[in-house]
Amino acid sequence: MGSDQPTAVVLLSGGLDSATVLAIARRDGFRCRCVSIDYGQRHRAELECAHAVARSMESDLTVLPLDLTRIGGSALTSDAIDVPKGRSEHEIAGGIPSTYVPARNLIMLSVALAFAEVAGAADLFVGVNAVDYSGYPDCRPEFIDSFEQTANLATRAGVEAGGVEAGGGQTQGKRIEIHTPLIELTKGEIIRLGTELGVDYALTSSCYDPAEDGGACGACDSCQIRRAGFEGAGVPDPTRCA
Amino acid sequence: MGSDQPTAVVLLSGGLDSATVLAIARRDGFRCRCVSIDYGQRHRAELECAHAVARSMESDLTVLPLDLTRIGGSALTSDAIDVPKGRSEHEIAGGIPSTYVPARNLIMLSVALAFAEVAGAADLFVGVNAVDYSGYPDCRPEFIDSFEQTANLATRAGVEAGGVEAGGGQTQGKRIEIHTPLIELTKGEIIRLGTELGVDYALTSSCYDPAEDGGACGACDSCQIRRAGFEGAGVPDPTRCA
Repeated sequence: MGSDQPTAVVLLSGGLDSATVLAIARRDGFRCRCVSIDYGQRHRAELECAHAVARSMESDLTVLPLDLTRIGGSALTSDAIDVPKGRSEHEIAGGIPSTYVPARNLIMLSVALAFAEVAGAADLFVGVNAVDYSGYPDCRPEFIDSFEQTANLATRAGVEAGGVEAGGGQTQGKRIEIHTPLIELTKGEIIRLGTELGVDYALTSSCYDPAEDGGACGACDSCQIRRAGFEGAGVPDPTRCA
Repeated sequence: MGSDQPTAVVLLSGGLDSATVLAIARRDGFRCRCVSIDYGQRHRAELECAHAVARSMESDLTVLPLDLTRIGGSALTSDAIDVPKGRSEHEIAGGIPSTYVPARNLIMLSVALAFAEVAGAADLFVGVNAVDYSGYPDCRPEFIDSFEQTANLATRAGVEAGGVEAGGGQTQGKRIEIHTPLIELTKGEIIRLGTELGVDYALTSSCYDPAEDGGACGACDSCQIRRAGFEGAGVPDPTRCA
Protein backbone atom coordinates (compact mmCIF):
# COMPACT_ATOMS: atom_id res chain seq x y z
CA MET A 1 0.00 0.00 0.00
CA GLY A 2 1.34 3.45 -0.84
CA SER A 3 2.18 6.03 1.77
CA ASP A 4 -0.20 8.46 0.08
CA GLN A 5 -3.14 6.68 1.63
CA PRO A 6 -5.06 8.88 4.05
CA THR A 7 -5.01 7.73 7.67
CA ALA A 8 -8.18 6.90 9.57
CA VAL A 9 -8.62 6.15 13.26
CA VAL A 10 -10.89 3.16 13.89
CA LEU A 11 -12.44 2.39 17.28
CA LEU A 12 -12.00 -1.35 17.64
CA SER A 13 -13.69 -3.28 20.44
CA GLY A 14 -13.02 -6.85 19.36
CA GLY A 15 -16.68 -7.34 18.53
CA LEU A 16 -18.09 -8.10 15.11
CA ASP A 17 -19.34 -4.61 14.31
CA SER A 18 -16.02 -2.84 14.71
CA ALA A 19 -14.18 -5.64 12.87
CA THR A 20 -16.52 -5.03 9.95
CA VAL A 21 -15.93 -1.29 10.17
CA LEU A 22 -12.17 -1.82 9.98
CA ALA A 23 -12.64 -3.87 6.81
CA ILE A 24 -14.84 -1.13 5.32
CA ALA A 25 -12.31 1.61 6.15
CA ARG A 26 -9.58 -0.42 4.47
CA ARG A 27 -11.79 -1.07 1.45
CA ASP A 28 -12.34 2.69 1.24
CA GLY A 29 -8.59 3.23 0.93
CA PHE A 30 -7.63 4.27 4.43
CA ARG A 31 -4.53 3.24 6.31
CA CYS A 32 -6.04 2.41 9.68
CA ARG A 33 -4.83 3.11 13.18
CA CYS A 34 -7.04 1.24 15.61
CA VAL A 35 -7.77 2.30 19.17
CA SER A 36 -9.29 0.18 21.95
CA ILE A 37 -10.07 1.34 25.47
CA ASP A 38 -9.37 -1.07 28.31
CA TYR A 39 -12.07 0.32 30.56
CA GLY A 40 -12.18 -2.57 33.00
CA GLN A 41 -15.07 -4.10 31.06
CA ARG A 42 -16.42 -7.38 32.39
CA HIS A 43 -15.78 -8.82 28.93
CA ARG A 44 -12.10 -7.91 28.73
CA ALA A 45 -11.68 -11.00 26.57
CA GLU A 46 -12.71 -8.73 23.73
CA LEU A 47 -9.39 -6.89 23.94
CA GLU A 48 -7.51 -10.04 22.93
CA CYS A 49 -9.92 -10.26 20.02
CA ALA A 50 -9.19 -6.64 19.11
CA HIS A 51 -5.49 -7.47 18.84
CA ALA A 52 -6.25 -10.48 16.64
CA VAL A 53 -8.64 -8.52 14.43
CA ALA A 54 -6.17 -5.66 13.94
CA ARG A 55 -3.37 -8.10 13.10
CA SER A 56 -5.61 -9.94 10.62
CA MET A 57 -6.12 -6.66 8.75
CA GLU A 58 -2.52 -5.43 8.99
CA SER A 59 -3.42 -2.46 11.18
CA ASP A 60 -1.85 -0.90 14.26
CA LEU A 61 -3.72 -1.13 17.54
CA THR A 62 -3.23 1.00 20.62
CA VAL A 63 -4.99 -0.14 23.78
CA LEU A 64 -5.40 2.73 26.23
CA PRO A 65 -6.40 1.99 29.84
CA LEU A 66 -9.17 4.12 31.37
CA ASP A 67 -10.67 2.44 34.39
CA LEU A 68 -14.41 3.10 34.22
CA THR A 69 -15.01 0.67 37.10
CA ARG A 70 -14.00 3.66 39.24
CA ILE A 71 -17.24 5.22 37.98
CA GLY A 72 -19.39 2.07 37.68
CA GLY A 73 -23.11 2.39 37.08
CA SER A 74 -23.28 -0.38 34.46
CA ALA A 75 -23.46 -4.17 34.43
CA LEU A 76 -20.29 -4.03 32.32
CA THR A 77 -18.29 -1.94 34.82
CA SER A 78 -19.72 -2.92 38.20
CA ASP A 79 -19.79 -6.36 39.79
CA ALA A 80 -22.79 -5.18 41.80
CA ILE A 81 -24.98 -5.16 38.67
CA ASP A 82 -25.78 -8.44 36.90
CA VAL A 83 -25.73 -8.82 33.13
CA PRO A 84 -29.35 -9.52 32.09
CA LYS A 85 -29.79 -12.97 30.56
CA GLY A 86 -32.46 -14.69 28.52
CA ARG A 87 -34.46 -11.55 27.78
CA SER A 88 -37.08 -11.69 25.05
CA GLU A 89 -36.73 -9.78 21.80
CA HIS A 90 -39.42 -7.42 23.10
CA GLU A 91 -37.52 -6.83 26.34
CA ILE A 92 -34.26 -6.21 24.48
CA ALA A 93 -35.97 -3.63 22.29
CA GLY A 94 -37.71 -2.01 25.26
CA GLY A 95 -35.33 0.64 26.51
CA ILE A 96 -31.87 1.40 27.80
CA PRO A 97 -30.57 -1.72 29.59
CA SER A 98 -28.26 -2.04 32.58
CA THR A 99 -25.37 -2.82 30.21
CA TYR A 100 -25.40 0.81 29.10
CA VAL A 101 -22.07 2.32 30.21
CA PRO A 102 -22.47 6.00 31.09
CA ALA A 103 -20.93 8.24 28.45
CA ARG A 104 -18.81 5.39 27.07
CA ASN A 105 -19.10 6.14 23.38
CA LEU A 106 -18.58 9.84 24.00
CA ILE A 107 -15.42 9.08 25.99
CA MET A 108 -14.13 6.62 23.39
CA LEU A 109 -14.81 8.93 20.46
CA SER A 110 -13.11 11.78 22.33
CA VAL A 111 -9.99 9.68 22.89
CA ALA A 112 -10.07 8.53 19.26
CA LEU A 113 -10.34 12.17 18.23
CA ALA A 114 -7.16 12.98 20.14
CA PHE A 115 -5.37 10.15 18.33
CA ALA A 116 -6.73 11.39 15.01
CA GLU A 117 -5.61 14.94 15.61
CA VAL A 118 -2.06 13.92 16.48
CA ALA A 119 -1.93 11.52 13.52
CA GLY A 120 -3.15 14.26 11.17
CA ALA A 121 -6.22 12.14 10.40
CA ALA A 122 -9.54 13.77 9.66
CA ASP A 123 -11.50 10.51 9.52
CA LEU A 124 -12.82 8.50 12.47
CA PHE A 125 -14.66 5.23 12.05
CA VAL A 126 -16.96 3.75 14.69
CA GLY A 127 -19.23 0.70 14.52
CA VAL A 128 -22.36 2.11 16.11
CA ASN A 129 -25.61 0.64 14.87
CA ALA A 130 -29.12 1.88 15.51
CA VAL A 131 -31.11 -1.04 14.07
CA ASP A 132 -30.24 -4.34 15.79
CA TYR A 133 -28.77 -2.83 18.90
CA SER A 134 -29.30 -2.56 22.62
CA GLY A 135 -31.10 0.75 22.89
CA TYR A 136 -28.00 2.71 23.86
CA PRO A 137 -28.48 6.47 23.42
CA ASP A 138 -24.90 6.84 22.21
CA CYS A 139 -25.48 4.62 19.18
CA ARG A 140 -28.05 6.92 17.56
CA PRO A 141 -27.39 9.08 14.49
CA GLU A 142 -28.39 12.25 16.36
CA PHE A 143 -25.64 11.61 18.92
CA ILE A 144 -23.05 11.01 16.22
CA ASP A 145 -24.07 14.14 14.28
CA SER A 146 -23.81 16.22 17.43
CA PHE A 147 -20.45 14.70 18.36
CA GLU A 148 -19.09 15.53 14.91
CA GLN A 149 -20.02 19.17 15.42
CA THR A 150 -18.49 19.22 18.89
CA ALA A 151 -15.32 17.52 17.63
CA ASN A 152 -14.81 20.23 15.06
CA LEU A 153 -15.22 22.92 17.70
CA ALA A 154 -12.99 21.13 20.24
CA THR A 155 -9.85 20.71 18.19
CA ARG A 156 -7.12 22.60 16.44
CA ALA A 157 -7.86 20.57 13.33
CA GLY A 158 -11.51 21.53 13.33
CA VAL A 159 -10.89 25.19 14.09
CA GLU A 160 -8.24 25.52 11.40
CA ALA A 161 -10.46 23.77 8.88
CA GLY A 162 -13.20 26.21 9.75
CA GLY A 163 -10.95 29.11 8.87
CA VAL A 164 -10.92 30.54 12.38
CA GLU A 165 -7.67 32.38 12.92
CA ALA A 166 -5.11 30.10 14.45
CA GLY A 167 -1.34 30.10 14.88
CA GLY A 168 -0.20 32.77 12.42
CA GLY A 169 -3.51 32.83 10.60
CA GLN A 170 -2.80 29.65 8.67
CA THR A 171 -5.54 27.13 8.06
CA GLN A 172 -3.96 23.74 7.74
CA GLY A 173 -6.65 21.62 9.35
CA LYS A 174 -9.06 19.20 7.85
CA ARG A 175 -12.64 19.01 8.96
CA ILE A 176 -13.12 15.99 11.23
CA GLU A 177 -15.60 13.45 9.86
CA ILE A 178 -17.18 10.64 11.89
CA HIS A 179 -17.92 7.61 9.71
CA THR A 180 -20.64 5.21 10.87
CA PRO A 181 -21.00 2.82 7.94
CA LEU A 182 -23.13 0.34 9.94
CA ILE A 183 -25.57 2.74 11.49
CA GLU A 184 -28.52 1.87 9.22
CA LEU A 185 -27.73 -1.82 8.66
CA THR A 186 -29.31 -4.84 10.31
CA LYS A 187 -26.97 -7.24 12.08
CA GLY A 188 -27.54 -9.72 9.25
CA GLU A 189 -26.54 -7.11 6.66
CA ILE A 190 -23.43 -6.24 8.65
CA ILE A 191 -22.36 -9.89 8.74
CA ARG A 192 -23.01 -10.40 5.03
CA LEU A 193 -21.00 -7.29 4.17
CA GLY A 194 -18.13 -8.28 6.45
CA THR A 195 -18.10 -11.79 5.03
CA GLU A 196 -17.81 -10.34 1.51
CA LEU A 197 -14.91 -8.21 2.70
CA GLY A 198 -13.15 -11.23 4.18
CA VAL A 199 -13.62 -10.48 7.89
CA ASP A 200 -12.72 -13.50 10.00
CA TYR A 201 -15.52 -13.43 12.57
CA ALA A 202 -13.90 -16.34 14.41
CA LEU A 203 -11.53 -13.71 15.80
CA THR A 204 -14.33 -11.59 17.28
CA SER A 205 -16.18 -11.76 20.58
CA SER A 206 -19.58 -10.31 21.43
CA CYS A 207 -20.52 -11.81 24.80
CA TYR A 208 -20.98 -9.42 27.74
CA ASP A 209 -20.33 -12.12 30.31
CA PRO A 210 -17.92 -14.70 28.92
CA ALA A 211 -16.55 -17.67 30.85
CA GLU A 212 -12.96 -17.53 32.03
CA ASP A 213 -11.88 -19.38 28.89
CA GLY A 214 -13.56 -16.70 26.77
CA GLY A 215 -16.54 -18.86 25.80
CA ALA A 216 -19.75 -16.92 25.17
CA CYS A 217 -22.67 -17.24 27.60
CA GLY A 218 -25.20 -17.44 24.77
CA ALA A 219 -27.89 -15.73 26.85
CA CYS A 220 -26.96 -12.06 27.23
CA ASP A 221 -28.51 -9.50 24.88
CA SER A 222 -25.32 -9.27 22.85
CA CYS A 223 -25.09 -13.06 22.34
CA GLN A 224 -28.75 -13.16 21.32
CA ILE A 225 -28.39 -10.27 18.87
CA ARG A 226 -25.28 -11.92 17.42
CA ARG A 227 -27.00 -15.29 17.02
CA ALA A 228 -30.02 -13.72 15.30
CA GLY A 229 -27.64 -11.76 13.06
CA PHE A 230 -25.81 -14.85 11.82
CA GLU A 231 -29.13 -16.60 11.30
CA GLY A 232 -30.41 -13.58 9.36
CA ALA A 233 -27.28 -13.53 7.23
CA GLY A 234 -27.52 -17.26 6.55
CA VAL A 235 -23.91 -17.64 7.65
CA PRO A 236 -22.69 -19.97 10.42
CA ASP A 237 -21.08 -18.23 13.40
CA PRO A 238 -17.51 -19.54 13.44
CA THR A 239 -16.92 -18.73 17.11
CA ARG A 240 -17.68 -20.56 20.31
CA CYS A 241 -20.76 -18.33 20.75
CA ALA A 242 -23.52 -20.68 21.97
CA MET B 1 -25.07 20.94 55.09
CA GLY B 2 -28.32 19.12 54.39
CA SER B 3 -28.52 16.00 52.27
CA ASP B 4 -31.13 17.69 50.08
CA GLN B 5 -28.41 19.69 48.34
CA PRO B 6 -28.13 18.85 44.64
CA THR B 7 -24.86 17.24 43.59
CA ALA B 8 -22.57 18.81 41.02
CA VAL B 9 -19.48 17.36 39.39
CA VAL B 10 -16.59 19.84 39.22
CA LEU B 11 -13.54 19.36 36.99
CA LEU B 12 -10.64 20.31 39.21
CA SER B 13 -7.14 20.73 37.81
CA GLY B 14 -5.36 22.24 40.78
CA GLY B 15 -5.10 25.57 38.99
CA LEU B 16 -6.66 28.82 40.11
CA ASP B 17 -9.59 28.80 37.70
CA SER B 18 -11.03 25.45 38.75
CA ALA B 19 -10.46 26.26 42.44
CA THR B 20 -12.57 29.37 41.92
CA VAL B 21 -15.22 27.34 40.11
CA LEU B 22 -15.45 24.92 43.03
CA ALA B 23 -16.03 27.85 45.39
CA ILE B 24 -18.74 29.19 43.07
CA ALA B 25 -20.51 25.82 42.85
CA ARG B 26 -20.51 25.58 46.64
CA ARG B 27 -21.79 29.15 46.96
CA ASP B 28 -24.60 28.18 44.59
CA GLY B 29 -25.70 25.41 46.95
CA PHE B 30 -24.19 22.34 45.34
CA ARG B 31 -22.57 19.44 47.10
CA CYS B 32 -19.50 18.97 44.94
CA ARG B 33 -17.80 15.85 43.69
CA CYS B 34 -14.53 16.82 42.08
CA VAL B 35 -12.79 14.94 39.29
CA SER B 36 -9.19 15.30 38.11
CA ILE B 37 -7.56 13.45 35.25
CA ASP B 38 -3.99 12.29 35.73
CA TYR B 39 -3.13 12.43 32.05
CA GLY B 40 0.62 12.29 32.43
CA GLN B 41 0.79 16.07 32.27
CA ARG B 42 4.24 17.61 32.57
CA HIS B 43 2.88 19.65 35.46
CA ARG B 44 1.62 16.74 37.53
CA ALA B 45 2.35 18.85 40.58
CA GLU B 46 -1.08 20.31 39.96
CA LEU B 47 -2.70 17.05 41.07
CA GLU B 48 -1.34 17.50 44.59
CA CYS B 49 -2.82 20.97 44.48
CA ALA B 50 -6.16 19.52 43.38
CA HIS B 51 -6.21 17.32 46.48
CA ALA B 52 -5.40 20.29 48.71
CA VAL B 53 -8.01 22.50 47.05
CA ALA B 54 -10.75 19.84 47.35
CA ARG B 55 -9.88 19.26 51.01
CA SER B 56 -9.93 22.99 51.71
CA MET B 57 -13.51 23.12 50.43
CA GLU B 58 -14.70 19.88 52.04
CA SER B 59 -15.28 18.14 48.72
CA ASP B 60 -14.54 14.65 47.43
CA LEU B 61 -11.92 14.26 44.73
CA THR B 62 -11.45 11.32 42.38
CA VAL B 63 -8.27 11.28 40.32
CA LEU B 64 -8.65 9.07 37.27
CA PRO B 65 -5.55 8.06 35.28
CA LEU B 66 -5.72 8.38 31.48
CA ASP B 67 -2.26 8.43 29.96
CA LEU B 68 -2.39 10.99 27.15
CA THR B 69 1.40 10.76 26.73
CA ARG B 70 0.53 7.64 24.71
CA ILE B 71 -1.03 10.09 22.25
CA GLY B 72 1.33 13.05 22.70
CA GLY B 73 1.17 15.99 20.32
CA SER B 74 1.44 18.65 23.01
CA ALA B 75 4.18 20.32 25.04
CA LEU B 76 2.26 19.12 28.11
CA THR B 77 2.17 15.46 27.09
CA SER B 78 5.34 14.99 25.06
CA ASP B 79 8.92 15.50 26.20
CA ALA B 80 9.81 16.08 22.54
CA ILE B 81 7.95 19.42 22.53
CA ASP B 82 9.24 22.29 24.68
CA VAL B 83 6.97 24.51 26.73
CA PRO B 84 7.25 28.00 25.20
CA LYS B 85 8.78 30.55 27.56
CA GLY B 86 8.98 34.31 27.70
CA ARG B 87 6.48 34.97 24.94
CA SER B 88 5.06 38.45 24.57
CA GLU B 89 1.42 39.26 25.28
CA HIS B 90 0.93 39.56 21.53
CA GLU B 91 2.44 36.14 20.91
CA ILE B 92 0.33 34.55 23.66
CA ALA B 93 -2.81 36.01 22.10
CA GLY B 94 -1.77 34.99 18.60
CA GLY B 95 -3.17 31.49 18.13
CA ILE B 96 -3.27 27.95 19.41
CA PRO B 97 0.04 27.23 21.18
CA SER B 98 1.99 24.00 21.49
CA THR B 99 0.61 23.53 25.01
CA TYR B 100 -2.78 22.76 23.47
CA VAL B 101 -3.54 19.10 24.34
CA PRO B 102 -5.57 17.46 21.57
CA ALA B 103 -9.20 16.94 22.62
CA ARG B 104 -8.31 17.30 26.32
CA ASN B 105 -11.32 19.29 27.48
CA LEU B 106 -13.65 17.10 25.45
CA ILE B 107 -12.17 14.00 27.06
CA MET B 108 -12.29 15.49 30.55
CA LEU B 109 -15.84 16.71 30.20
CA SER B 110 -16.87 13.31 28.85
CA VAL B 111 -15.37 11.56 31.86
CA ALA B 112 -16.98 14.10 34.20
CA LEU B 113 -20.29 13.44 32.45
CA ALA B 114 -19.98 9.72 33.23
CA PHE B 115 -19.38 10.56 36.90
CA ALA B 116 -22.35 12.92 36.88
CA GLU B 117 -24.67 10.38 35.34
CA VAL B 118 -23.79 7.70 37.90
CA ALA B 119 -24.05 10.22 40.76
CA GLY B 120 -27.47 11.36 39.52
CA ALA B 121 -26.05 14.84 39.01
CA ALA B 122 -27.31 17.05 36.20
CA ASP B 123 -24.79 19.83 36.77
CA LEU B 124 -21.19 19.92 35.60
CA PHE B 125 -18.85 22.80 36.39
CA VAL B 126 -15.72 23.57 34.40
CA GLY B 127 -13.32 26.50 34.67
CA VAL B 128 -12.87 27.33 31.02
CA ASN B 129 -12.23 30.96 30.24
CA ALA B 130 -12.26 32.67 26.88
CA VAL B 131 -10.86 36.07 27.86
CA ASP B 132 -7.41 35.77 29.46
CA TYR B 133 -6.60 32.35 28.12
CA SER B 134 -4.21 30.55 25.85
CA GLY B 135 -6.21 30.41 22.64
CA TYR B 136 -7.35 26.84 23.14
CA PRO B 137 -10.33 25.94 20.93
CA ASP B 138 -11.88 23.88 23.71
CA CYS B 139 -12.23 26.89 26.02
CA ARG B 140 -14.67 28.75 23.77
CA PRO B 141 -18.39 29.15 24.48
CA GLU B 142 -19.32 27.57 21.13
CA PHE B 143 -17.48 24.40 22.11
CA ILE B 144 -19.19 24.26 25.51
CA ASP B 145 -22.64 24.85 23.98
CA SER B 146 -22.07 22.08 21.47
CA PHE B 147 -20.75 19.73 24.15
CA GLU B 148 -23.85 20.33 26.25
CA GLN B 149 -26.05 19.28 23.34
CA THR B 150 -23.93 16.22 22.69
CA ALA B 151 -23.94 15.28 26.39
CA ASN B 152 -27.72 15.28 26.44
CA LEU B 153 -27.84 13.03 23.38
CA ALA B 154 -25.12 10.69 24.67
CA THR B 155 -26.59 9.73 28.01
CA ARG B 156 -29.49 7.98 29.63
CA ALA B 157 -30.02 11.06 31.76
CA GLY B 158 -30.27 13.33 28.76
CA VAL B 159 -32.49 11.01 26.76
CA GLU B 160 -34.86 10.47 29.65
CA ALA B 161 -35.00 14.18 30.36
CA GLY B 162 -35.87 14.75 26.74
CA GLY B 163 -38.85 12.45 27.04
CA VAL B 164 -37.55 9.92 24.56
CA GLU B 165 -38.93 6.52 25.45
CA ALA B 166 -36.56 4.71 27.74
CA GLY B 167 -36.78 1.71 30.05
CA GLY B 168 -40.51 1.28 30.54
CA GLY B 169 -41.36 4.70 29.15
CA GLN B 170 -40.39 6.49 32.33
CA THR B 171 -38.63 9.80 32.23
CA GLN B 172 -36.53 10.12 35.34
CA GLY B 173 -33.59 12.00 33.90
CA LYS B 174 -32.53 15.56 34.34
CA ARG B 175 -31.22 17.62 31.51
CA ILE B 176 -27.43 17.89 31.79
CA GLU B 177 -26.18 21.45 32.20
CA ILE B 178 -22.58 22.58 31.73
CA HIS B 179 -21.76 25.53 33.98
CA THR B 180 -18.89 27.80 32.94
CA PRO B 181 -19.06 30.64 35.43
CA LEU B 182 -15.65 32.05 34.44
CA ILE B 183 -16.04 32.02 30.69
CA GLU B 184 -16.56 35.78 30.28
CA LEU B 185 -14.36 36.97 33.15
CA THR B 186 -10.85 38.37 32.99
CA LYS B 187 -8.19 36.64 35.07
CA GLY B 188 -8.24 39.60 37.45
CA GLU B 189 -12.00 39.32 37.89
CA ILE B 190 -11.69 35.60 38.56
CA ILE B 191 -9.12 36.19 41.28
CA ARG B 192 -11.15 38.97 42.89
CA LEU B 193 -14.26 36.76 42.92
CA GLY B 194 -12.38 33.79 44.34
CA THR B 195 -10.78 35.95 47.00
CA GLU B 196 -14.23 37.16 48.07
CA LEU B 197 -15.35 33.52 48.25
CA GLY B 198 -12.39 32.59 50.43
CA VAL B 199 -10.37 30.57 47.92
CA ASP B 200 -6.85 29.92 49.21
CA TYR B 201 -4.83 30.49 46.05
CA ALA B 202 -1.67 29.41 47.91
CA LEU B 203 -2.95 25.87 47.35
CA THR B 204 -3.13 26.25 43.57
CA SER B 205 -0.56 25.78 40.83
CA SER B 206 -0.62 27.21 37.32
CA CYS B 207 2.85 26.59 35.91
CA TYR B 208 3.16 24.33 32.87
CA ASP B 209 6.77 23.47 33.58
CA PRO B 210 7.40 23.51 37.33
CA ALA B 211 10.69 22.59 38.98
CA GLU B 212 10.91 19.26 40.77
CA ASP B 213 10.02 20.96 44.04
CA GLY B 214 6.85 22.32 42.40
CA GLY B 215 8.15 25.88 42.07
CA ALA B 216 6.74 27.81 39.13
CA CYS B 217 8.96 28.71 36.18
CA GLY B 218 7.51 32.21 35.94
CA ALA B 219 8.04 32.34 32.17
CA CYS B 220 5.49 30.00 30.55
CA ASP B 221 2.26 31.44 29.19
CA SER B 222 0.32 30.18 32.18
CA CYS B 223 2.69 31.78 34.70
CA GLN B 224 2.54 35.04 32.78
CA ILE B 225 -1.25 35.02 32.58
CA ARG B 226 -1.41 34.24 36.30
CA ARG B 227 0.98 37.03 37.21
CA ALA B 228 -0.94 39.57 35.12
CA GLY B 229 -4.17 38.33 36.71
CA PHE B 230 -2.99 38.92 40.26
CA GLU B 231 -1.64 42.33 39.25
CA GLY B 232 -4.99 43.15 37.63
CA ALA B 233 -6.86 42.05 40.74
CA GLY B 234 -4.58 44.08 42.97
CA VAL B 235 -4.00 40.99 45.09
CA PRO B 236 -0.60 39.47 45.91
CA ASP B 237 -0.07 35.94 44.61
CA PRO B 238 0.46 33.84 47.73
CA THR B 239 2.27 31.01 45.89
CA ARG B 240 5.86 30.48 44.89
CA CYS B 241 4.91 31.61 41.37
CA ALA B 242 7.79 33.81 40.24
